[in-house]
Amino acid sequence: MAHFMDRLTESVRRVGNAVLVGLDPRFALLPDALKKDAAENPELQARACERFCHELIDVVAPLVAAVKPQVAFFEQFGPPGMEALSGVVQFAREKELLVIVDGKRNDIGSTAAAYAQAWLGGAKQNVWSGDALTVSPYLGDDSLLPFVELAGEQEAGVFVLVKTSNPGGAMLQDLVADGRPVYRHVADMVEQYANGSAGQCGYGHVGAVVGATYPEQLAELRQAMPHTWFLVPGFGSQGATAADVSGAFDERGLGAIVNSSRGINYAFSQPQYAEEYGAARWQRASEAAVLDMIEQLRAETPAGQLSPG
Amino acid sequence: MAHFMDRLTESVRRVGNAVLVGLDPRFALLPDALKKDAAENPELQARACERFCHELIDVVAPLVAAVKPQVAFFEQFGPPGMEALSGVVQFAREKELLVIVDGKRNDIGSTAAAYAQAWLGGAKQNVWSGDALTVSPYLGDDSLLPFVELAGEQEAGVFVLVKTSNPGGAMLQDLVADGRPVYRHVADMVEQYANGSAGQCGYGHVGAVVGATYPEQLAELRQAMPHTWFLVPGFGSQGATAADVSGAFDERGLGAIVNSSRGINYAFSQPQYAEEYGAARWQRASEAAVLDMIEQLRAETPAGQLSPG
Repeated sequence: MAHFMDRLTESVRRVGNAVLVGLDPRFALLPDALKKDAAENPELQARACERFCHELIDVVAPLVAAVKPQVAFFEQFGPPGMEALSGVVQFAREKELLVIVDGKRNDIGSTAAAYAQAWLGGAKQNVWSGDALTVSPYLGDDSLLPFVELAGEQEAGVFVLVKTSNPGGAMLQDLVADGRPVYRHVADMVEQYANGSAGQCGYGHVGAVVGATYPEQLAELRQAMPHTWFLVPGFGSQGATAADVSGAFDERGLGAIVNSSRGINYAFSQPQYAEEYGAARWQRASEAAVLDMIEQLRAETPAGQLSPG
Repeated sequence: MAHFMDRLTESVRRVGNAVLVGLDPRFALLPDALKKDAAENPELQARACERFCHELIDVVAPLVAAVKPQVAFFEQFGPPGMEALSGVVQFAREKELLVIVDGKRNDIGSTAAAYAQAWLGGAKQNVWSGDALTVSPYLGDDSLLPFVELAGEQEAGVFVLVKTSNPGGAMLQDLVADGRPVYRHVADMVEQYANGSAGQCGYGHVGAVVGATYPEQLAELRQAMPHTWFLVPGFGSQGATAADVSGAFDERGLGAIVNSSRGINYAFSQPQYAEEYGAARWQRASEAAVLDMIEQLRAETPAGQLSPG
């Protein structure tokens, strides 16, 4: 084990790209072969979703550094969904993928510590422990500290929501206080944690979630947060392109991982892949979507340096 | 079934008080008799926590309207913890308690819909479905809408974090934008949802979390949010008194439920109850703590009207 961002740096250099594959198992969108017989039964649906994620991991594990399971899509099935999530986290780890749990958790300090223990407590302690967790900042600095501290002890990572990719995010995050938008206030706090915990790669174990759908703010925050690694959602299905995320990277091609979930998970049902692959060859469609995304990031962003391609 | 806030109104009138009992099963704090033999095993610890909650529910069910299980304390045990939570939610429902799941969930719209389904989808759909859920507003209005909508369909409730009880909450929530603190901007959005969904009691199915530790803001928000029911944390262990929460109620003694978690859960280890009860009679200590809290709210707040005492 080593500092989380050093492990992430090593992994993105090894695979030669900055793609993060989101795992969003939406039962209704699964290939028919996986859906059949699960019908209205949450337990069978959860198992189908787990199988889908395992088969997707089989495809992407040789290609990318990390996966990001979205907890909501497991939680909706109740306890069997959480068993499925546990299986997915373990399987991804076995395949040597870093696992960034997308839970957007938070609460007041003493309760936040329990969430931190749940998701960052280390695999020995807890079978569904990830390498990193996304957290929400509305409750302020004392609510983030338990995550920051436990992640430091466990050589894990934390990604704090700063500027989210959805249109409604602007409502609160773009309010201007003391001459700066709210997201910049959060950014300052995160950068301070990051600066205080920098690894050999120059980045702290506390990162930021910054949406690809706001390219100007992404570039602005890259300048303002030199020690903060970015998790960048919004690529693909949410409309952002490789050119849009270019500003998220540093001059070495480090400092950002770019997430795509639906665009990879359900590539088989998208116009550009449906005809060639279809549901029967859905894994090949997902593989093609990952390879295309790698190529786009290579051509349009500093992450091209990660691989001589 | 009926509109959630009408159900809540009926329940608080039936029991004659506005006490909300938080269920915070912290393994290390459980009475020794429940801890023994569970040692380092998360599955046994989760079961001990479930048993603790059931025994606490046995005591409080005749006294109060609702309980608030804190998801973090179950999640930390992994899947067995979530099974335990499911058991607790079901047991509380059997005892005719309303269940407000404290998960502080949120995400972008299409993912928020999965969280909403998980916790507000109705008991038929999902064994751990609650009557209401707490949600976090950092991602803005389009992230709250799936919760608001599904809760409306299911006659469930949503409580949005507005002004939290922890000291660090001020960091972001008290930033002043356009002449008003951020929490007032969130309050406006919540009040709009509440106003658009008012039941016979006058309150909408979208409520607000407003900390008892800020009595002035509590009174200010009561004025600003006439259709919004408040879930008020911070009483007891966090330092707030009955007098502090008085401003949360309307003139009928409605419009607020006041949470106490640690102060009730672990009353047996607190100075004022330890000697008389101790760990062996921990349920009686919790019962005494609930009765004392009811009496304090009756004496010091408009909730006194709920019962002629």
